[in-house]
Amino acid sequence: MGAYLNTLTKPQGSLGIVEEIAVQLSRITGNKIPDITLPGILVFAADHGIATEGVSAYPQEVTAQMVHNFLDGGAAINVLARQINAQLEIVDIGVATDIDRKGLLQRKIRYGTANFLKEDSMSRSEAMQAIETGADIATSMLDKGINCLLLGEMGIGNTTSSSAILSVLSEMDAMHVVGAGTGITEEQQNYKKQVIRQAVVKRQPNSDDAIDVLAKIGGLELAGITGAILAAAERKIPVLIDGFISTVAALIATRLYKEAAEYLFIGHKSAEYGHQYAIKLLKKDPILDLGMRLGEGTGAALAFPILLAATNIVKEMATFESAGVSGKV
Amino acid sequence: MGAYLNTLTKPQGSLGIVEEIAVQLSRITGNKIPDITLPGILVFAADHGIATEGVSAYPQEVTAQMVHNFLDGGAAINVLARQINAQLEIVDIGVATDIDRKGLLQRKIRYGTANFLKEDSMSRSEAMQAIETGADIATSMLDKGINCLLLGEMGIGNTTSSSAILSVLSEMDAMHVVGAGTGITEEQQNYKKQVIRQAVVKRQPNSDDAIDVLAKIGGLELAGITGAILAAAERKIPVLIDGFISTVAALIATRLYKEAAEYLFIGHKSAEYGHQYAIKLLKKDPILDLGMRLGEGTGAALAFPILLAATNIVKEMATFESAGVSGKV
Repeated sequence: MGAYLNTLTKPQGSLGIVEEIAVQLSRITGNKIPDITLPGILVFAADHGIATEGVSAYPQEVTAQMVHNFLDGGAAINVLARQINAQLEIVDIGVATDIDRKGLLQRKIRYGTANFLKEDSMSRSEAMQAIETGADIATSMLDKGINCLLLGEMGIGNTTSSSAILSVLSEMDAMHVVGAGTGITEEQQNYKKQVIRQAVVKRQPNSDDAIDVLAKIGGLELAGITGAILAAAERKIPVLIDGFISTVAALIATRLYKEAAEYLFIGHKSAEYGHQYAIKLLKKDPILDLGMRLGEGTGAALAFPILLAATNIVKEMATFESAGVSGKV
Repeated sequence: MGAYLNTLTKPQGSLGIVEEIAVQLSRITGNKIPDITLPGILVFAADHGIATEGVSAYPQEVTAQMVHNFLDGGAAINVLARQINAQLEIVDIGVATDIDRKGLLQRKIRYGTANFLKEDSMSRSEAMQAIETGADIATSMLDKGINCLLLGEMGIGNTTSSSAILSVLSEMDAMHVVGAGTGITEEQQNYKKQVIRQAVVKRQPNSDDAIDVLAKIGGLELAGITGAILAAAERKIPVLIDGFISTVAALIATRLYKEAAEYLFIGHKSAEYGHQYAIKLLKKDPILDLGMRLGEGTGAALAFPILLAATNIVKEMATFESAGVSGKV
């Protein structure tokens, strides 16, 4: 594939990362001309007991309200999904209230996680069930012909859970991995760090056991994303993840199945502070860097045209020979 | 506009640079919901006498050959233009040979520039004429309803001319602004630096007179881009430029009309070494950073969906009030 790219009418390597993406997509799909023309986006929504500790800028009810907004088509991810002609599915994998809406995938494992400062987020079997649910839903989407899977989430409090997981997996102090989330003050951030530190000490998640980490301090939407990644990897379908939360879920996925990393692209570098460490652990460079920190899969949707361009370049460009263009002197 | 963005259902500022782009597009067009749904790409092609000094990895005939490739639809910019549904026009503003092809805008000012190591690239009146030609062609495109102008170029030897201009405008030694172009060796780069240094000393362009700089060490495609930027600015149409060459042309444009900067977006940060200094002088941050160095407007075309997303966000997202989503605690 690298060799074929060098026959196309452009200086060798001059499309930089776009060429690397083309090579990776070709390797993932086993096709010289990878087809990713049917993107699908899964947004997993869930609540977090830890939100009652006052770690978020927004009240917990916003999770359910945003699910309604998704179903009404008014959120950022709806706009961006329409722009790239992606199928968009919203999954209630653990919102704290019942949401009775047509079009919503109702796969609630439980009504939000428990407050992990006081008890485990969920049981081990619930964590497993949430992963399986994510995998099931992704598989259904792939069964419909989706050939590139974009993943996002909604869950008030989920940067707290993700930062806690990252501090355990990276063996870094909460101090270094906690950020502003949806927009808390510095004082609130210091408090958030203390909460995470204490919670990790109390819960004692086993960093060698990803499911244990997920169960003790994780979130249901994170588990859903983990499962979706594993399902796509099994099908050899490229997965474009979003920012901080989904990168942490991807870290869990790669702990469960190392080869899953091969199928992953990170849409963008999040402005959320801990993302820089999460991407280092995952050993992947994000495609975009636009100072975003919205979630929902917005960074993935914005990056998708770059992946599509990589495949179009391979599919449609002339070679030096076919176009009669001279090579290097 | 910033205030309106804060009413949309997302944490304030969480779309980062995408929000800044929305604000700038709104300011440029004077519309709260800027319409950039009809993008047009102009690729200016011209030859450079300096190519005879052996400063490029490719022979001069590649310029004309690539014009044929553009007209046949096989170049990278063709692929990316199709992906974003952009109208694409190719302009022969100074290719060294005659190209008799339907669809080509034949506006040749002269058969390539002179070798500026030995004499001025062109006369002052030719430089003015090339700027006017660029402006004319852009105006025609805007007359057809194009509401976002993307600019690119093709011209073997044009990183040498652009580096020379940058060294004059930035008052930096050639040493610091010269890069690998389409892919020359380090040894060839050292030679290229010497050529530029000598040429600048011999030509003595007046750094306070942008037309003088363009005439003495510039290129016809650079002048064309300069003119196109000025024409779009006059019409209050946003301009999305590509990488190194077009940023240098934008520097010339802003020397001629300071306010032109307001209308500009830089598509991507080029891997060409001098681009970092060119963007500093222009005081603009590129949107993408994908290690690309192809030219033709490819970085602009790849960045266009980000601009489009910024307008779609403003146009289509629900507000906290309309969606019934709670605000900050």
